[in-house]
Amino acid sequence: MTPAGRRPGPSTTSAAILGAARTLFAHGGYQGTTMRAIAEQAGVNQALIRHFYGSKQDLFLSAVALPEEAIGAMMTTLERTPRQRLGEQIVAVFVHIWRDPTTSHQVQAFFRAAAGTEEGAKMARDLAEHLLLPRFVATLAIEPSIGAAIVAQLLGFAFLSVIVGAEPLSTASDETVVALLGPTVQAYLDRS
Amino acid sequence: MTPAGRRPGPSTTSAAILGAARTLFAHGGYQGTTMRAIAEQAGVNQALIRHFYGSKQDLFLSAVALPEEAIGAMMTTLERTPRQRLGEQIVAVFVHIWRDPTTSHQVQAFFRAAAGTEEGAKMARDLAEHLLLPRFVATLAIEPSIGAAIVAQLLGFAFLSVIVGAEPLSTASDETVVALLGPTVQAYLDRS
Repeated sequence: MTPAGRRPGPSTTSAAILGAARTLFAHGGYQGTTMRAIAEQAGVNQALIRHFYGSKQDLFLSAVALPEEAIGAMMTTLERTPRQRLGEQIVAVFVHIWRDPTTSHQVQAFFRAAAGTEEGAKMARDLAEHLLLPRFVATLAIEPSIGAAIVAQLLGFAFLSVIVGAEPLSTASDETVVALLGPTVQAYLDRS
Repeated sequence: MTPAGRRPGPSTTSAAILGAARTLFAHGGYQGTTMRAIAEQAGVNQALIRHFYGSKQDLFLSAVALPEEAIGAMMTTLERTPRQRLGEQIVAVFVHIWRDPTTSHQVQAFFRAAAGTEEGAKMARDLAEHLLLPRFVATLAIEPSIGAAIVAQLLGFAFLSVIVGAEPLSTASDETVVALLGPTVQAYLDRS
């Protein structure tokens, strides 16, 4: 509910739409989520969603993409970390992303969309090939195949621990996860 | 079509049902696939499916579980491999499983089911926690968390290369994949 006497501003409205989209895509998948349901959840009409975000596909890409400032902050952190501690740092950043409630929804929406339909897989492929992998590989100055192997290790871990929720990973502490996967990522970096 | 004068025997019929289930689950996911569609695809009635495989959930578990003889053969191969070459061998076995057309469908059905719905995630969790991980960990005599990290690396790779189909992984040769991931798996084994 909006406090009496105040209308929600554009940033509040667009954030509400994005929040509703993330929650519904995470639980229902891309195909199982309608623009109408997102509009209802956000308390707006569909025209307003199209005004802010365009088509359902555009909205989905906005919902699963990490905010530009978060990606920028992450890359800056990685650039400033000494090379010999970079493996641990990369894992720590990813553990934070997939366990933080907001971004955890984005990770889940990404998996559900990619695994659910051919259309979702194609979007995930575009996102991975053209946005995430090139930036990751350029920031760390590593070979593309090494970057892909690191991402595979992290995504596989998120899949087992967050999506499937299998033990012993799903309840392991952040420190345990960093100690388990950090040396693996470091070894990949040292090979590059 | 059945050759004239012969009726399909039980093993032919059950194999046809399983083949139809794997194809449809792989493309439509668990929730999106009906027993009726599987019956039509296999050319049998639903009662016969229930006779051979029980409920839809039982049939799904049969469809995504690797045949007992394949798992047995895999474990025997791993038991006979010298410890210092086990990393490469584990990756080679997995590359074969996720690139062979039949088992590739099983891997895809597993991902789609696990990522698609809460019910699918629960089944994947049961499969991972009670069947696959304990056997893998016992055969290799490694710690559960190390086994889970290896499985995460392999599943993440299958996700990126088979489900999402992202380069540079999806068209990398088997040898390239073994050279990329083998040392990682070996390092996990050496830590255990």
